[in-house]
Amino acid sequence: MKSFQNILIYGLGLMGASLSLSLKKKNLAKKITGVVRSEKSKLKGIELNIADEIFTEKQFLNQSWNQFDLIVFGLPVDLTCEKILLLPLNFSGVITDLGSTKKEIIEVVENKFSTSHNYISSHPMAGSEQTGLEFAKDNLFESKLCILTKPKNFNEVVFVELKQFWESIGSITIEMNASEHDEVLTYLSHTPHILSSILVNWAYQNKKVQEKTDSFPFPLTGGGFRDMSRIAGSNPEMWDAIINSNKKNIIQSLKEFKEEINKLAQELESGNSKEDFWKEYFNNSRKSRSKILKLKE
Amino acid sequence: MKSFQNILIYGLGLMGASLSLSLKKKNLAKKITGVVRSEKSKLKGIELNIADEIFTEKQFLNQSWNQFDLIVFGLPVDLTCEKILLLPLNFSGVITDLGSTKKEIIEVVENKFSTSHNYISSHPMAGSEQTGLEFAKDNLFESKLCILTKPKNFNEVVFVELKQFWESIGSITIEMNASEHDEVLTYLSHTPHILSSILVNWAYQNKKVQEKTDSFPFPLTGGGFRDMSRIAGSNPEMWDAIINSNKKNIIQSLKEFKEEINKLAQELESGNSKEDFWKEYFNNSRKSRSKILKLKE
Repeated sequence: MKSFQNILIYGLGLMGASLSLSLKKKNLAKKITGVVRSEKSKLKGIELNIADEIFTEKQFLNQSWNQFDLIVFGLPVDLTCEKILLLPLNFSGVITDLGSTKKEIIEVVENKFSTSHNYISSHPMAGSEQTGLEFAKDNLFESKLCILTKPKNFNEVVFVELKQFWESIGSITIEMNASEHDEVLTYLSHTPHILSSILVNWAYQNKKVQEKTDSFPFPLTGGGFRDMSRIAGSNPEMWDAIINSNKKNIIQSLKEFKEEINKLAQELESGNSKEDFWKEYFNNSRKSRSKILKLKE
Repeated sequence: MKSFQNILIYGLGLMGASLSLSLKKKNLAKKITGVVRSEKSKLKGIELNIADEIFTEKQFLNQSWNQFDLIVFGLPVDLTCEKILLLPLNFSGVITDLGSTKKEIIEVVENKFSTSHNYISSHPMAGSEQTGLEFAKDNLFESKLCILTKPKNFNEVVFVELKQFWESIGSITIEMNASEHDEVLTYLSHTPHILSSILVNWAYQNKKVQEKTDSFPFPLTGGGFRDMSRIAGSNPEMWDAIINSNKKNIIQSLKEFKEEINKLAQELESGNSKEDFWKEYFNNSRKSRSKILKLKE
């Protein structure tokens, strides 16, 4: 695998910082430079030895992009798009991001680079309900999927290098185009995140739930609810950007989910369901789950 | 605590069998007798040493209920109601169940016993996505909530004994009446189970998800989806009974969930959301989650 001399991770949040630690653990970069938003994050990053050199965004303004041979944007999608506009057109290194939606990023890249370029978009499907570099883990990407998306005019050598880069820290790579990516992720990540966030608000809005919860020192939930609510409300800024960059798919998927709720509510209200209606529904769910998670039945 | 001489666990599924193992581990019963449906489960139960004596339902028909000083029904709600009708009116021991809804069970108990009786209903909020005694665990109830519900004419001494019984295997007890229980559990367990089951079907119904999932050797999901789908479709028989015994609350809660989806879909469609709409929504979710799960913010 190509080894990088000076990697820039622009945005040392949970994802960017975990990438830095993963690379350091495997000795895959000679030097890693990180950019953070605040002075406070910079101090925290230095204390936790997240990168070899850390700049705040302001401090980084004087720096040249050309000193790096790999640039990774670890930012919300909207900010990633803004930064892409600042890149030098003749940048000779590899460029990527960690964005959770692809359509906007790929559009910006294709508008920016009208001839051959070194940008390939990445979506490592790892994360946590926690936010910030203090929760970074050096094994966050191990055995996790990383989806690679090629803009027009991409450089084939760079694609191979980036694929190897992710595989070298233990990720499993797959390629999808931007439209496929955004549609598939709508169902497997974006809208589930919204549903988990609805779940906790909806439950806590119930007066009885609120009264009983507030008056008892322990949570009234079992493991099912706890699992379903794990990602609820996590990283509002990142998710705001995801939702706003994938609206059309999300609206469509919400409608479908609502239709499915309607169907089941009507079934319950009708009072004349087939005897095995629910058993069949749940058996079907079990099968769908096994298919999606690749479990043996 | 009162120690029981001969406990009957009628229904050695995951829950009943785990109760038996928990009691054995702590030496809290002189003898435990179990009842299972099939000969196959009986052999499995003997092999795994789940109880001291195991009958099939058919074999148990000749047995007297009066030989036991504690009877626990580990059955789906509808079958629990059927068995309650068979109990002798003058039964001197303690009787309980592990039912996930209370209204039907309490009604049957109150109709059956018009004077003082020893029945208190229990709902240990523990479980697993797995079904059957082979998945039983001797620590399933440790640090888990157990909700106790008193029918009319219950015996106060029995209530205290049963509370101590659950606490002796590590559970945290709380008391709720049947109507409170069924309403609170609608939001924290029953409808979330349905939503998780909808989630996997809805996702796998999408053609692109199906195509990409089926053609790739690894699952395309991140941890969020995996967590949210854990309970999808588990134990169809038990959940069929839960849903059918708590229809009214579940219908109401599904309508509310649908309304919340509507609100968010409209917000997305309108295209003129407040700038911070989603950040506020997710921050609110985060707060609801912390309240429900009793997390420190």
